[in-house]
Amino acid sequence: MQDPLGLRPVGRVESPLVDAAEAPLQGDEGAPDAWLAFDQSVADALRDLQPGDEVLVLTWLDRASRDVLVVHPRGDLSRPATGVFATRSPDRPNPIGLHRVTVLAVDATRVQVSDLEALDGTPVLDVKPVLGPPDER
Amino acid sequence: MQDPLGLRPVGRVESPLVDAAEAPLQGDEGAPDAWLAFDQSVADALRDLQPGDEVLVLTWLDRASRDVLVVHPRGDLSRPATGVFATRSPDRPNPIGLHRVTVLAVDATRVQVSDLEALDGTPVLDVKPVLGPPDER
Repeated sequence: MQDPLGLRPVGRVESPLVDAAEAPLQGDEGAPDAWLAFDQSVADALRDLQPGDEVLVLTWLDRASRDVLVVHPRGDLSRPATGVFATRSPDRPNPIGLHRVTVLAVDATRVQVSDLEALDGTPVLDVKPVLGPPDER
Repeated sequence: MQDPLGLRPVGRVESPLVDAAEAPLQGDEGAPDAWLAFDQSVADALRDLQPGDEVLVLTWLDRASRDVLVVHPRGDLSRPATGVFATRSPDRPNPIGLHRVTVLAVDATRVQVSDLEALDGTPVLDVKPVLGPPDER
């Protein structure tokens, strides 16, 4: 491992989900709507997000274990132990969460999104649009 | 902004691309094949990656500017200035690159992938499988 890089949260998730054991494993498996509360310092970065946009939200899964390299996928002990880079386990060396969601509403620096499985308080790192085909970029 | 989080590279990109000005903007816009050279410490995490796998590679875009919040998309000054969270600009508060690629070959802790627009030496943070439909996870 090399020197740490300085990642800084740009906001936090506000969600009814507080218990990892009760959270869906993926957003499209019954996750609730949630708000992303951004820091005022990045207000200009989010000024063009609009309801209906399909975006990728990157989070820091701060309750994950970073020293786990092998897991049973989806916690199912009947499935063979698998290297985490071939799974979506939150436990991995750099626990970055990747969530595809739809923007539902924007209220100044607060953005409501659909189907987010991240827990309440999870740091938000980045938002990126889902890429369309090359000629629409 | 809040306290930095400790991200640690798990490997590096080895690519013929060394100049950002000559690199394609996205992988499917003519980017070359590249190797990901992983740290021996994460060998177990990548042991189940196989040629043909569709994966998302997360990188740290270490030549990006972190204080940029608004850009002209794709560097095209004829397009309106846009908040970076509505663009794929590498310049953004947390410059995490997200690359959808196909695994071409695996040689111990080295993994060859297709169509990667990241520059030579770029730190690799994570690899995740592209998610299939819910009943195939």
